[in-house]
Amino acid sequence: MQKISGGVIAPKGFRAIGVAGGIKISGKKDISLIISDGPCVAAGVFTENIFKAAPVIVSMEILKRNPTGIRGIIANSGNANCLTGEKGIEDAKKMAKIVEEYFGFEENTILVASTGIIGKPLPMEIIEYGIRKACEKIKQESSSTFSAEAIMTTDTKIKETAIQHISGLESFRIGAIGKGSGMINPSMATMLCFVTTDVKITQELLQKALKDAVEETFNKISVDGDMSTNDTVFILSSRKAEFSITKKDEKYELFYNYLKEVLNTIAMMIVEDGEGVTKVAKISVINANKKSIAEKISRRVGNSLLIKTMLFGENPNWGRILAAIGSAGENIKPEKLIVKVNDKTIFEKNTYIGYPNNDILKNKYINITIDLGTGKEEFTLYTTDLSYEYVKINAEYT
Amino acid sequence: MQKISGGVIAPKGFRAIGVAGGIKISGKKDISLIISDGPCVAAGVFTENIFKAAPVIVSMEILKRNPTGIRGIIANSGNANCLTGEKGIEDAKKMAKIVEEYFGFEENTILVASTGIIGKPLPMEIIEYGIRKACEKIKQESSSTFSAEAIMTTDTKIKETAIQHISGLESFRIGAIGKGSGMINPSMATMLCFVTTDVKITQELLQKALKDAVEETFNKISVDGDMSTNDTVFILSSRKAEFSITKKDEKYELFYNYLKEVLNTIAMMIVEDGEGVTKVAKISVINANKKSIAEKISRRVGNSLLIKTMLFGENPNWGRILAAIGSAGENIKPEKLIVKVNDKTIFEKNTYIGYPNNDILKNKYINITIDLGTGKEEFTLYTTDLSYEYVKINAEYT
Repeated sequence: MQKISGGVIAPKGFRAIGVAGGIKISGKKDISLIISDGPCVAAGVFTENIFKAAPVIVSMEILKRNPTGIRGIIANSGNANCLTGEKGIEDAKKMAKIVEEYFGFEENTILVASTGIIGKPLPMEIIEYGIRKACEKIKQESSSTFSAEAIMTTDTKIKETAIQHISGLESFRIGAIGKGSGMINPSMATMLCFVTTDVKITQELLQKALKDAVEETFNKISVDGDMSTNDTVFILSSRKAEFSITKKDEKYELFYNYLKEVLNTIAMMIVEDGEGVTKVAKISVINANKKSIAEKISRRVGNSLLIKTMLFGENPNWGRILAAIGSAGENIKPEKLIVKVNDKTIFEKNTYIGYPNNDILKNKYINITIDLGTGKEEFTLYTTDLSYEYVKINAEYT
Repeated sequence: MQKISGGVIAPKGFRAIGVAGGIKISGKKDISLIISDGPCVAAGVFTENIFKAAPVIVSMEILKRNPTGIRGIIANSGNANCLTGEKGIEDAKKMAKIVEEYFGFEENTILVASTGIIGKPLPMEIIEYGIRKACEKIKQESSSTFSAEAIMTTDTKIKETAIQHISGLESFRIGAIGKGSGMINPSMATMLCFVTTDVKITQELLQKALKDAVEETFNKISVDGDMSTNDTVFILSSRKAEFSITKKDEKYELFYNYLKEVLNTIAMMIVEDGEGVTKVAKISVINANKKSIAEKISRRVGNSLLIKTMLFGENPNWGRILAAIGSAGENIKPEKLIVKVNDKTIFEKNTYIGYPNNDILKNKYINITIDLGTGKEEFTLYTTDLSYEYVKINAEYT
């Protein structure tokens, strides 16, 4: 596995750009465009929120109709096009259509995504102008970074990555851009992530790989426990590489691990760029008798305001971790429970020990390991602290 | 129903006091004592957290052994005596024993409660001194307010109330003190509440009334979604009033409603005094097909950080309410859903309307009504905003 530059334009057959279309009053980039040289096999995973934003509904439909003929993705930041009714659906369709018409693509070839504030109609005149500007620009210039920049909202850092596999002629590449820093939780923990690859793969296997990889990466991070209405992960394969996957064999496994690596990189960038984040905590619940219990406890601990504020305050109230574990109820056997913070045991044999040296909380990274001692299942959650800055960002976000 | 003064000493047969024993470095009151003239019928409801604090374990045992012979309650703030192992149990027993010996009561007649930081042993020398001081003091002076003051931690306001029922000779009184402002959530939403009454009632009916009333009051408030290790509600009846309850008749119903009123008063005081609270929101989910769904949605909305920060910021991102409702999944039918904020409809007929005049968020009290339109069940949650002050209090609490 080799890290390479280029983000979503690292795999063969893709161009990308981001422009300032005028949605963001700040004048920052807000229209993101990815285009492929030819039809792509594509897959998607979306928010499970009942109130799916219009672009989610429209893209699900496009993917269903034309899963092997996708030519690109158009996305905007600054407005989520969510809770916007029929008008929102029309607007999302129009975003795709402008690109399709500009490049002479057929219908149902461009996927759509939006991120930003909920409940306001898209300013379509501005958006049309911005999309046309992006279409013009992408003919002369291609930049994954600009494309990534244009989907940022409260994100403070650009999120892109790419890797390649080489073994003789059988090489392939995967690249991705992502955004997300609040409303990060349960079912798929990013707002947007666009992945490109040139691997030769069937649509069925691509969809399966994406779904499973999202489960193992984005679904294991949490900033605030809130579920977005716009969460979308797309993957587009140009199928221009030699590496060919036709069934669930070793080659599929290789690709799947690479894909997980790419999504995990973006997921960790999202956690580290969580709104107002000063600490990152890894919460591993191990030796549970059910995976669902391991997940419940890790989310209980990871989303506890008392633990989040403790991390922020560098204040060694370690007992709050036990209180959160204990609130998960009858599945806990205190006599079997072992809790460790950065490899030091703070609770064992039904006895609270505490942390010998509380300076540990000065670290940016905190590992909390919760060994239930009742089985073999586990779940790991990556989460953050809760700072004044989080409150400020979300109190003032309009 | 008539509000009266006196708190826990309003009912016949009780004395109360609070003193500064020296646990709190600030020199504030930290030892609270309630004593009855004779044996009381008593009942209790406790946290469901697996990690129950030592005084919870000890008091559950005392109540089991001697439910009709309780003589009082000894409580301290500044230290929760939780996660303190065998030593913690001994210390809690000792707290009761000091009072029992001082007054010449039998064993298992004094209930114990503690609140404060988790994971540190009680400073028993200081506590012994404080308890003896309280025992001395209560002989000369009786004050529910001092008693309430002595169980405060991050509370900023004293919480006490009392009411009486009068109809001819059949009068009775109920009084209460309470504390709580953080770790307020799922199963019983207060840290401590001590209730006294002089009603003539059997232990079985008293226990039932308390359990049901807690369900309808303390279990419907939430500040931060965290569950305490020390939650305790005690009720002591001196049985000195004429009003006598022997079965689940109209008189029981009358008493039950009065008890609910008392607990509700304390519960609302706790919400309003929630850590860093600037707003109080009432979230009513109505017309659900199951009560559990109504509760799930109200808790999802009430504990959403995005909604809490929106309330604090007075920032009209009403769409966040829909996003939180939508995250509760398949039980929501958008075409049947009606969402109102202070009686103005913000969502109806699958259409987001928003609030006509966003000044509403300047109010301290916000009513959110979520009509699912799928049945007859309902649940109401009282919750708060999330402010800089909440973060500060919990980041710095040691």
